[in-house]
Amino acid sequence: MRIVALAGGIGGARFLRGLKEAVAPGDEITVIGNTGDDIHLYGLKVCPDLDTVMYTLGGGINEDQGWGRTDETWSIKAEMKEYGVGPEWFGLGDRDFATHLVRSQMLSAGYSLSQVTEALCVRWRPGVRLIPMSDDRVETHVRITDEAGPRVVHFQEYWVRLHAAVDAEAIIPVGADTAKPAPGVLEAIAAADVILLPPSNPVVSIGTILAVPGIRQAVSDASAPVVGLSPIIGGAPVRGMADKVLAAVGVETSAEAVARHYGSELLDGWLVDDSDAAAVAGVEAAGIRCRAVPLLMSDVPATAGMARAALALAAEVRA
Amino acid sequence: MRIVALAGGIGGARFLRGLKEAVAPGDEITVIGNTGDDIHLYGLKVCPDLDTVMYTLGGGINEDQGWGRTDETWSIKAEMKEYGVGPEWFGLGDRDFATHLVRSQMLSAGYSLSQVTEALCVRWRPGVRLIPMSDDRVETHVRITDEAGPRVVHFQEYWVRLHAAVDAEAIIPVGADTAKPAPGVLEAIAAADVILLPPSNPVVSIGTILAVPGIRQAVSDASAPVVGLSPIIGGAPVRGMADKVLAAVGVETSAEAVARHYGSELLDGWLVDDSDAAAVAGVEAAGIRCRAVPLLMSDVPATAGMARAALALAAEVRA
Repeated sequence: MRIVALAGGIGGARFLRGLKEAVAPGDEITVIGNTGDDIHLYGLKVCPDLDTVMYTLGGGINEDQGWGRTDETWSIKAEMKEYGVGPEWFGLGDRDFATHLVRSQMLSAGYSLSQVTEALCVRWRPGVRLIPMSDDRVETHVRITDEAGPRVVHFQEYWVRLHAAVDAEAIIPVGADTAKPAPGVLEAIAAADVILLPPSNPVVSIGTILAVPGIRQAVSDASAPVVGLSPIIGGAPVRGMADKVLAAVGVETSAEAVARHYGSELLDGWLVDDSDAAAVAGVEAAGIRCRAVPLLMSDVPATAGMARAALALAAEVRA
Repeated sequence: MRIVALAGGIGGARFLRGLKEAVAPGDEITVIGNTGDDIHLYGLKVCPDLDTVMYTLGGGINEDQGWGRTDETWSIKAEMKEYGVGPEWFGLGDRDFATHLVRSQMLSAGYSLSQVTEALCVRWRPGVRLIPMSDDRVETHVRITDEAGPRVVHFQEYWVRLHAAVDAEAIIPVGADTAKPAPGVLEAIAAADVILLPPSNPVVSIGTILAVPGIRQAVSDASAPVVGLSPIIGGAPVRGMADKVLAAVGVETSAEAVARHYGSELLDGWLVDDSDAAAVAGVEAAGIRCRAVPLLMSDVPATAGMARAALALAAEVRA
């Protein structure tokens, strides 16, 4: 079975770890990774979501924080402070820096981001095929108004520095309109037996992937069932601050609203948490088959159970 | 008093530390640093000699090895090994990497190497004005013949990887012929009251600085006395493998031969070690005033004594 998953960072990576447990030997997982939260720091190309997937599936992730490397050291960060060079608010550890150095050097040498990602995965052996959504530069920006007045900041500045404490007025995936899907993305979607939308951020993770021209259409057109898992449980994001960016696109923070936001042209099935069982009828009324199951990724077995439920719903849709 | 010193890496930096102890309050030291051993690694510009001067005078040097940072960590090096990205033979610690990142980012932004060096020195406060010999790219290469046949390698590969174990057939300062002295270099030389050649490598450190068109002439033409200190004691380099590169330019490894190599057009005074007192007459016969003093930089006070002897010889020449 060929499974395609569109993935953001922490939530996506953790779901994929469960998915790997849930699939049968011989099944192939292709992950189309969000690159909209990429940022250039210290002259280096940093791809937080791709790295989080790579580190999580490759056994190098810092489990407690969900991003960055295990056994990390922070010498460079301390030195940057001494040099007075920022941004201070973005945490790049020394081991993590090595990834960005290798990536940036390969990009400078003319390799594409998807070629670089493949090369990095030779080391990490994530057990999936990881493809960035695009080899073109896409960086999500957020329009806000704070004491500095109305302005646009990089998504990372909004998320990491400002902790999404001010309202997001608009989410702008800069470059997405002219970006092309990376080689293999549309082919994998077309050839898939199942397409999964993990419980990643529907706006700045999966939404950005779908904003690359051609990808949303390919998912809609795919013969495979498309099944998503709600990142919202009981009216709040399980992790992160998805409510802030949902509000920016006029979507209520609820499992049903997110399903309707994706829409029945895209989604064939939707999983909500048991505690949101009341939402099932509304989602189904929108033309999307819906089931309530436990959706907390508390550990790998629980997450594998969610993946199995998603695959089962896909099979049900297909039948 | 305005003192100008041409400096290489470890030997030069240690001498400068003694010189700072030896000068009077109000004296100004300008250091013209060798950049011929610069190398591009991992997409970053690495300037080992400038950094060694900066770290040594700024209190950040690893005292035991003479290069690199104190309290260093090596996470990136370990990661590079995991990624299979070399060169393995060049030791860049994490703290050191921060310097190369800041430098490379500033260079990419359009600043010159001398502007970058000045900016880095805001942090390090070396107590001297440190100017690279040139803002243009100069990288010393070495012609060798080994089991791979006749070939040309970067100086760092010759020095660090091959430990100068094969003969150097030629020393080629690539780019030096078209390089221009950095802003301030010729002016500092012309305005100097004393010009010192520390016991740095006469070929690949001081020789490379003198190879930048205009610098040798400026030193020769300067009204200030030019005094050097022999890096050779008892027929061997005090540190490093200077004999290998001296042979490549046809110079015997002796205190007298190095003085004659610089020549009386350049040098007004020369200090040899007490153990080389027999060389004094030969150097003086070459038209260079010569004294024998203790030349081992065993600690800062001993090094300050050497610096005082050099300044005294300069005063004697001037009188």
